[in-house]
Amino acid sequence: MSEKLNLACDYMQGAHPAILKRMAENNLVKSGVYGYDAFSDSAKAKIREACQAPDADIWFLVGGTQTNATVLDAVLAPYEGVISAETGHICIHEAGAIEHGGHKVLALPGTDGKITAEQIQACIDKYWSDGNHEHVVMPGAVYLSQPTEVGTLYSLQELEDISRICHHGGLRLYVDGARLAYALACPENDVTLPDLARLCDVFYIGGTKCGSLLGEAVVFPKRAIPHFFSIVKQHGAVLAKGFVAGLQFDTLFTDNLYFEIGRTGIDTANRIRQTLQGKGYILPFNSPTNQIFVLLDQTKLDELSEKIEMSFWDKPDAEHTIMRFVTSWATTEEDVEGLKLLL
Amino acid sequence: MSEKLNLACDYMQGAHPAILKRMAENNLVKSGVYGYDAFSDSAKAKIREACQAPDADIWFLVGGTQTNATVLDAVLAPYEGVISAETGHICIHEAGAIEHGGHKVLALPGTDGKITAEQIQACIDKYWSDGNHEHVVMPGAVYLSQPTEVGTLYSLQELEDISRICHHGGLRLYVDGARLAYALACPENDVTLPDLARLCDVFYIGGTKCGSLLGEAVVFPKRAIPHFFSIVKQHGAVLAKGFVAGLQFDTLFTDNLYFEIGRTGIDTANRIRQTLQGKGYILPFNSPTNQIFVLLDQTKLDELSEKIEMSFWDKPDAEHTIMRFVTSWATTEEDVEGLKLLL
Amino acid sequence: MSEKLNLACDYMQGAHPAILKRMAENNLVKSGVYGYDAFSDSAKAKIREACQAPDADIWFLVGGTQTNATVLDAVLAPYEGVISAETGHICIHEAGAIEHGGHKVLALPGTDGKITAEQIQACIDKYWSDGNHEHVVMPGAVYLSQPTEVGTLYSLQELEDISRICHHGGLRLYVDGARLAYALACPENDVTLPDLARLCDVFYIGGTKCGSLLGEAVVFPKRAIPHFFSIVKQHGAVLAKGFVAGLQFDTLFTDNLYFEIGRTGIDTANRIRQTLQGKGYILPFNSPTNQIFVLLDQTKLDELSEKIEMSFWDKPDAEHTIMRFVTSWATTEEDVEGLKLLL
Amino acid sequence: MSEKLNLACDYMQGAHPAILKRMAENNLVKSGVYGYDAFSDSAKAKIREACQAPDADIWFLVGGTQTNATVLDAVLAPYEGVISAETGHICIHEAGAIEHGGHKVLALPGTDGKITAEQIQACIDKYWSDGNHEHVVMPGAVYLSQPTEVGTLYSLQELEDISRICHHGGLRLYVDGARLAYALACPENDVTLPDLARLCDVFYIGGTKCGSLLGEAVVFPKRAIPHFFSIVKQHGAVLAKGFVAGLQFDTLFTDNLYFEIGRTGIDTANRIRQTLQGKGYILPFNSPTNQIFVLLDQTKLDELSEKIEMSFWDKPDAEHTIMRFVTSWATTEEDVEGLKLLL
Repeated sequence: MSEKLNLACDYMQGAHPAILKRMAENNLVKSGVYGYDAFSDSAKAKIREACQAPDADIWFLVGGTQTNATVLDAVLAPYEGVISAETGHICIHEAGAIEHGGHKVLALPGTDGKITAEQIQACIDKYWSDGNHEHVVMPGAVYLSQPTEVGTLYSLQELEDISRICHHGGLRLYVDGARLAYALACPENDVTLPDLARLCDVFYIGGTKCGSLLGEAVVFPKRAIPHFFSIVKQHGAVLAKGFVAGLQFDTLFTDNLYFEIGRTGIDTANRIRQTLQGKGYILPFNSPTNQIFVLLDQTKLDELSEKIEMSFWDKPDAEHTIMRFVTSWATTEEDVEGLKLLL
Repeated sequence: MSEKLNLACDYMQGAHPAILKRMAENNLVKSGVYGYDAFSDSAKAKIREACQAPDADIWFLVGGTQTNATVLDAVLAPYEGVISAETGHICIHEAGAIEHGGHKVLALPGTDGKITAEQIQACIDKYWSDGNHEHVVMPGAVYLSQPTEVGTLYSLQELEDISRICHHGGLRLYVDGARLAYALACPENDVTLPDLARLCDVFYIGGTKCGSLLGEAVVFPKRAIPHFFSIVKQHGAVLAKGFVAGLQFDTLFTDNLYFEIGRTGIDTANRIRQTLQGKGYILPFNSPTNQIFVLLDQTKLDELSEKIEMSFWDKPDAEHTIMRFVTSWATTEEDVEGLKLLL
Repeated sequence: MSEKLNLACDYMQGAHPAILKRMAENNLVKSGVYGYDAFSDSAKAKIREACQAPDADIWFLVGGTQTNATVLDAVLAPYEGVISAETGHICIHEAGAIEHGGHKVLALPGTDGKITAEQIQACIDKYWSDGNHEHVVMPGAVYLSQPTEVGTLYSLQELEDISRICHHGGLRLYVDGARLAYALACPENDVTLPDLARLCDVFYIGGTKCGSLLGEAVVFPKRAIPHFFSIVKQHGAVLAKGFVAGLQFDTLFTDNLYFEIGRTGIDTANRIRQTLQGKGYILPFNSPTNQIFVLLDQTKLDELSEKIEMSFWDKPDAEHTIMRFVTSWATTEEDVEGLKLLL
Repeated sequence: MSEKLNLACDYMQGAHPAILKRMAENNLVKSGVYGYDAFSDSAKAKIREACQAPDADIWFLVGGTQTNATVLDAVLAPYEGVISAETGHICIHEAGAIEHGGHKVLALPGTDGKITAEQIQACIDKYWSDGNHEHVVMPGAVYLSQPTEVGTLYSLQELEDISRICHHGGLRLYVDGARLAYALACPENDVTLPDLARLCDVFYIGGTKCGSLLGEAVVFPKRAIPHFFSIVKQHGAVLAKGFVAGLQFDTLFTDNLYFEIGRTGIDTANRIRQTLQGKGYILPFNSPTNQIFVLLDQTKLDELSEKIEMSFWDKPDAEHTIMRFVTSWATTEEDVEGLKLLL
């Protein structure tokens, strides 16, 4: 409700209008509860098709941290930890939810938010070659996000390599797709939903940041987890009105809406990036998706902060700050043009 | 989406139309996130006023099990357990979420879903008089629900007595108000929101079963829990688009909508109860709220099941089954009249 | 260090002299650590032979609660609970250690501390026949103790029945043998170590109450738990000087010492029981092992308490108290004869 | 039981002979259980005196990982993590026991196993200056060990600085003294027991590696933790025969035995260090205590490994290995002279 031009994040507005319209139309329909309803069934069928994964087991949870904590608890043995980039969301911004569930996050230094198959292999090798490894947390899974925390993308080749290493080493590969729509719609991206289904043990298709009020679609493309409902329930992650999430994903996966949402985010982001580059701003990460990072000195920061709501990212030195603009399905022509005038 | 008359539960439809309308009107408003937004602020102010608790600390979580697990984890020391009726929701229907959080549920046998101040006192006394009590789980909180799991109500006197026992014994009193609207609107009820705020350490005002898409409003009437946001986050219970819950509670607490919703549920329930009693059905619990329990023999069960969606409750003996009808803000004249014809 | 005749428990003295002697002889031997040493290897070989379980996987933990919590955590899925008699040690006297590990204890009412195959079957059936069972804690294991908390014994037939029910229902059977020596040496007992190895998924042979300074030998007769060392370590249950436990069990299983220890406990207990019965005391439980329960009125309680250290058990009514005498490997002729004079 | 000269660690032999003698003398004494006994009371009085902390609350636990996990769980709020050097025992060698208890270990890079007050302050500042700190794990305690994992020592000045930072920032300071005897006896050391009592919120005096069969003495010099017994019990860390630990600490703190044990370890270590330096070996860490690290090329490693049991420490590059010798109270003149001949 700010008067300033607001480009601070991709979850500050409601749902894509197509979703809200459909919710209104079906508001009084009496549905099954806890996710056992016709909207959810339909959404799952569409996601299975989009992933070319006819046997996939699919669940709709509410939010990202909840999903990460629940899924990792479900796929890790108690003595296993999860490998993540140091900048990974689970490593820094989930208030210790993974550790609260009993698992260590094994942090690896990343480059532009990404870790490599070689690093993962080295971490696995270090564990097994350690004479005291029974006293050490065993790597049990790899957590990636696509796009990453700083908006970068894993290439198909990188993901193939990581997947091979994981499966050879007995680790589960989990991809957090909180902003997956913006990856899928990005020209630089060569990883499709069927690729994710083929290469991961589990991944989630983000709803909250990609057009829905809430909801993340967890996909186990190959193997369902026994009694996963009870695990979800135990984590407080079952939505009583599961159809609210189901209907939204059903809409997102109808008529390519999910991909269209991604495109709007990418198109507006690219125009903002071009404007910034044209005006000589420094863009620190190589992010081609809907997050645009910009390095500002104190004068410029003060100036822009008066007119624009951005989000703080980092302070690499005393004189500079990295700020972030984020676009979404809801970013408008006016937002982009307005920003041009203010920069 | 069944063709049968469906009275199975109070969370099988969307939101009260007033909520959906307001969501549509504000869909593109850019709000603060994680619950720090104007809708949430306004909702909290209205709830504080309705509770006559100007200093109350209020949080919007997503669902009931999540709320129970998060709140109990926040108010219990690690070595403390929570007293509950054996029929309490946390005791039987949350897949062990409380134990998953490390706390024992100390189950007491109830009468019509209720436990008494005397029972609680006896439980406390038993702990402290046990020579080995350092080896025993300490009672640290009491969990009640209003209405209870079987739709009955604590009277103000009962709640005063329990509150006094709790505070004298150093236990926190927590009331689960998943269906609180239906208690508040019930003629038999003499416990108001200000009473709850006065007598409890924490309680929640249910949204999911009382007109919203999702959301439960946790009220700490007297004392905030330090760093509660991080606790909520750690439980995966922070809603990124917190304004979605805030707007709904803001609407529920505007123009007495929450109480009106309760009244619709109670009025329709009472008419169904009268019909049932008039036709000679046996109603096993003394529930005056929006859940109506009915004892059926096998013939009657088979007959009604063909035409009506009810929910299974219990099977007290080989020949009888207790089934449940539930009304809500969305139960219509047609539902009630239709049921009359089918009974 | 009391002047009174002390029969309060079976863990108030050091180790059987044969153990202490052997510890002194080997005190400066340089051994492998964390349980990987020659004493432990020898002890395991002897236990495997005593159990006629050549493939058994055996571990030495320190104490009973630690063992119960670690083993149950290792054999239960996160969503599973453990069935126990209401009087079971894990249910009442472990300060909630099982729930601290995330698992609900599913308490069944017992008779003389025992539960039956029928009760267990009913509990399993109730879970699976419940339409909402995904919301309910799944029974995943059965916890028994032999002897039970009140000194009674499961017969071989009872254990066979329970084992069959468990394995048919997919539950793991776990027997806590904290006082197993006293069961094995009891004339009423017909359950041998090979029977336990045949019928259980895991059990432990108690050391602490049966002659050692500390230590419980966990036996997985059929299938080892992968990475159990790391699980034990994570529970803080690895003893750095594992050879201290190994040497003690090696001694206990040399020349039938474990059985001889049991016999001393049983013989002295039987003589005390006969004396009590001869003098008209009421012995409330049907305990044939090394715990002797006696019902006392207030006058008698006061009188005996002046001269004898017993342990408090229960207070069934305002006028009566149940007290407990316990014998052990260390109970002497003087203790028994002294007690006769004081009763 | 190896034929090779064994200097691999300081917990491969039994107890100091004075302890074993006293255990034998008191073996049949009937004591209170669970730590409530005269030996424990006496030991606590002596430790309070040695620490000049008359109000200290003291507990005897069994082992180091157990102690670290139990103490940190007791002093941390659920949303708090613990700062540690990356090389800290809790960070690498406890199989994730701290995370299993729900807490993140906040690892800082160390120098020779030590972290500084400045680093800790920076970590605290980073948390509080982060606009999203509610989403981040709050630093709640600092974990140090004295000596550190690589045998180095915090100076009194360093500890004063860290203590001041901790208390100013609201963090608890916890010192792991698994090998404390060897620090206290080291000429380079200027930190006394009364210093630790003055500067820490909690620390432990190691027994297992300093002459006892088992046992660590946890000292809360200023403030007891309410219901700590139940917390210890819940972690499976209560020793039934608590007097076994009490008697050992009572002996260790009689006639300066604990300090004498330390001196033996230091004297023998220093002689080994001098020999190594005289022969031109490279000693990588600046460790003045009972652990001696030595950098070996492959030829030398192979040669020494044939004759000496050392422990593996690290492999800094393909051609070199860091191995460790450890001395203790039990290291003899023969060990030292024998080693001289083999090097």
